[in-house]
Amino acid sequence: MANVAVMGFGTVGSGVYEILKQNAEHIAGKAGEEVKVKYILDIRDFDDHPEKQLFTKNFADIAGDASVSTVVEVMGGLHPAYEYTKELLENGKSVITSNKELVATHGTELLEIAEKHNTNYFFEASVGGGIPIIRPMHQCLAANEIEKIAGILNGTTNYILTQMIEKGKSFGDALTDAQNKGYAERNPAADVEGHDACRKIAILASLASGKFVDYKDIPTEGITEITLEDVRYADSMDCVVKLIGYAEISGGKVMARVCPMIIPRTVPLSDVDDVFNAIMIHGNMVGDVMMYGRGAGMLPTASAVVADVIDAVKHSNVPKHLTWTAAEENIMLDGDEKQTVMFIRTLAGADAVRREFADAEFVDNIVDEETAFLTPKLSEKEIRSRLDKIGDIVSGLRVLEI
Amino acid sequence: MANVAVMGFGTVGSGVYEILKQNAEHIAGKAGEEVKVKYILDIRDFDDHPEKQLFTKNFADIAGDASVSTVVEVMGGLHPAYEYTKELLENGKSVITSNKELVATHGTELLEIAEKHNTNYFFEASVGGGIPIIRPMHQCLAANEIEKIAGILNGTTNYILTQMIEKGKSFGDALTDAQNKGYAERNPAADVEGHDACRKIAILASLASGKFVDYKDIPTEGITEITLEDVRYADSMDCVVKLIGYAEISGGKVMARVCPMIIPRTVPLSDVDDVFNAIMIHGNMVGDVMMYGRGAGMLPTASAVVADVIDAVKHSNVPKHLTWTAAEENIMLDGDEKQTVMFIRTLAGADAVRREFADAEFVDNIVDEETAFLTPKLSEKEIRSRLDKIGDIVSGLRVLEI
Repeated sequence: MANVAVMGFGTVGSGVYEILKQNAEHIAGKAGEEVKVKYILDIRDFDDHPEKQLFTKNFADIAGDASVSTVVEVMGGLHPAYEYTKELLENGKSVITSNKELVATHGTELLEIAEKHNTNYFFEASVGGGIPIIRPMHQCLAANEIEKIAGILNGTTNYILTQMIEKGKSFGDALTDAQNKGYAERNPAADVEGHDACRKIAILASLASGKFVDYKDIPTEGITEITLEDVRYADSMDCVVKLIGYAEISGGKVMARVCPMIIPRTVPLSDVDDVFNAIMIHGNMVGDVMMYGRGAGMLPTASAVVADVIDAVKHSNVPKHLTWTAAEENIMLDGDEKQTVMFIRTLAGADAVRREFADAEFVDNIVDEETAFLTPKLSEKEIRSRLDKIGDIVSGLRVLEI
Repeated sequence: MANVAVMGFGTVGSGVYEILKQNAEHIAGKAGEEVKVKYILDIRDFDDHPEKQLFTKNFADIAGDASVSTVVEVMGGLHPAYEYTKELLENGKSVITSNKELVATHGTELLEIAEKHNTNYFFEASVGGGIPIIRPMHQCLAANEIEKIAGILNGTTNYILTQMIEKGKSFGDALTDAQNKGYAERNPAADVEGHDACRKIAILASLASGKFVDYKDIPTEGITEITLEDVRYADSMDCVVKLIGYAEISGGKVMARVCPMIIPRTVPLSDVDDVFNAIMIHGNMVGDVMMYGRGAGMLPTASAVVADVIDAVKHSNVPKHLTWTAAEENIMLDGDEKQTVMFIRTLAGADAVRREFADAEFVDNIVDEETAFLTPKLSEKEIRSRLDKIGDIVSGLRVLEI
């Protein structure tokens, strides 16, 4: 029998408990032995819980119990999750987490400690909730060099954009709607400003390149500036606007970015609606593959955590190292040099546009007195310098190329 | 260093060789040691090959070489692939295959032999080509009971249907086009009659249920009867026609089927076009997840084979058993009892339809003198019995519900 401790009894933690209970027999079959929750750590009281004897407020109960082989850390936040994880790994216990903040910040060190102590640090649930993504990328696409990743990594913003696209709601109304449905926090900054997606693409880019990609080095724009007019222009081009976490890996270097993008409806990512997430990966042998599913929610996220638990239990003696290491030099490429097509709205006239972009592809304007166009494919730096000369820019959005 | 033998130097075999060469350094990093091709078995001569010394026509060279730990079987067909695989597993070698025919026919016995001899029998590439599907389903969704699978599992038929839908080509013209492009064989029966998809859904249903599902027990219809009118009717309902491998697993029982289905454009599977494949899986905890990518082709399929090779090399001492066992009783449920909605075309009038299906939802007819409608949700048996009373049925297609 494998004894598991769950640290943090919030949404994901209670989901993990429920899955381990509800699918117990199935999980025992998969893991090769019974998987049982021995402790639940939470600072709150759960006196009404049917298994209230499992609860503890004392981390030392878990760290000091040699019979606990695997610990689920779903507390969120950096502290004390970091200190706890470190101590548990040093004690040789496997740690499973959904804490993207912690993985994106201290992942390099924690993976190193896990390797040193011959144990596992797994984080499938930290990206894409219930969608299998970390393991497929690391293991099933192991024969490939991963060249590109483009993902809809945040369900809240995708719900808001879907409401704007399909219901014609403004950003503000769609946000209020998302908050009322429990999809967005009262303070929605982490989602709508792209910070959540940024941590997730940083984790994926680290895995794909094998070197730590610091989320702080990834230029990040959210969707707060996206207007209904942007959405309607996209629609007129048979496209949609989505918040994309993007990474290109080449020759050991990484170019990463989080920003809203224009996506042609012919691209499968364009059909990922509401709170669903999807990640498109381009491998040098397999070409494009995409994984799609629920990127958040109690049971989907807990499903990914429990899969990691089963894997850790099966491989407690032979740890499987999902790993990246610290980069010895700066591996980040400047996004300014990336060749791209941009969709631009300006109050300047078509002549002014033509002077700078002889090959501009004009789009019928939806807003009076605006000129709308697609630039030719040029470096972002070059595009920006020409836009400065045109002036009166209303908005600019990159077009995703897969 | 891990020595690998490749049996069969056709499309997939030469792809495996190429990937192991081209991504050698990357693969060594993933596997923890260099992975080297020591033998290539083929009955043909390859005297012009730069590494012609690797080729052999003698299976005993491979079976008798203790330094070969892992063998790739991409010969296709049942014999001698079955006999070779059996002997290799009995010798303790890991065998990796893309041979869906063999896995769907003798998988149960070969998995049992692998387990007994403490070695691996992996077959990621047998379903969905380069798409990670076997391992994500078995491992990443391990916390879930898999309740439903619906997949576009055959690229040839999906290409043909896409041509019919998007270009208005007839089935015959689209088939000729697919043959000219090399997507369809001169004898296209295995693809267009659904046999290929049938073996693949049998493998997925076996994995999901843990019990062997014999492909011979799966009712299978191909796309040879699909007309442009069917496709146009679907379009008028904002749907498309796709060939679907379908399985429902419940209480240890399996209902499986291969048939063309009407799929609403709101369902992500509807956007899977051309030779791409996708598999939608419904787990009781995670909900719907979908994996999308290239279901065939030299490098995508070889990419999945090589991922299995890496996994086998890493786990040569601690085999990972992907497994199902023989079913002790008949586990197949009769599809006749399944509740479904059908789209029906008949030469009978609307009154005759209304007499049998008071709740029929009529669809504007595209062909003169036809009546077209959607049945209410009823058992297939019930629907068929009522259709017999209406008579003059032109065609009937099931509507996919996800």
